[in-house]
Amino acid sequence: MSLPSRINLVTLGVANVATSTAFYERLGWTKSPVSNDDVTFFYSEGTVLGLFGRASLADDANVNDLELGYSAVALAQNFASEAEVDEAYRHALACGAEPRKSPQKVFWGGYSGYFADPDGHLWELAHNPFISLDERGHMCLP
Amino acid sequence: MSLPSRINLVTLGVANVATSTAFYERLGWTKSPVSNDDVTFFYSEGTVLGLFGRASLADDANVNDLELGYSAVALAQNFASEAEVDEAYRHALACGAEPRKSPQKVFWGGYSGYFADPDGHLWELAHNPFISLDERGHMCLP
Repeated sequence: MSLPSRINLVTLGVANVATSTAFYERLGWTKSPVSNDDVTFFYSEGTVLGLFGRASLADDANVNDLELGYSAVALAQNFASEAEVDEAYRHALACGAEPRKSPQKVFWGGYSGYFADPDGHLWELAHNPFISLDERGHMCLP
Repeated sequence: MSLPSRINLVTLGVANVATSTAFYERLGWTKSPVSNDDVTFFYSEGTVLGLFGRASLADDANVNDLELGYSAVALAQNFASEAEVDEAYRHALACGAEPRKSPQKVFWGGYSGYFADPDGHLWELAHNPFISLDERGHMCLP
């Protein structure tokens, strides 16, 4: 027995499902019709992104809800060029994202920036010159 | 311009990269050879799971590192049956996962359990009778 190497769903606990849904729709995502007032689902090529009330998620997972803070989780989108990273980052800020780190050359040899969504969830936008993307935009990880 | 509906990489900030890497290897995942002492990458069919030191991630994203707590992010794996969820959950506990919620019938009509990895990151193991999985195990979201 082993757990499959697969992530079906990433669920972000959010303060207000409608507010966060509107943010991701501005970015350019389309929600699934299975979404409802309590939860939103966005399809993302193999992985579903879910938005769910923080208190509801804490209750569902049987953990205590804490004050909002650094979550020690970052989601990332990779792009084929530095110019595409710059364009996507500008778009995110125009949609109301909070800037965390402007796209720049970084120590590992790539180009990367960070923004935070309305609940502080971190997104990295990156170009990695050492890892190519396939026709679906997936990383061709060795 | 829009950001593509795509999650290339989910990075978990962890206290000890080697400890957490060993946990995910026990679950059954195989790390990429691009991994090194500071960061581990697991391929997961379109989404890469990364393990990175919490302080390093905080520094990289230009945020303050806080005490470990509920992160308001849950990762999920879906299975084709309740029996598969039970089997996977038992395997996770045998690998040292911390139980959070034993697999059980839940309010939305499915079957779900939660465990926490060595840093408290939440994983849900679920069977959703309303959403089928394709041949790659991806959710066929309407």
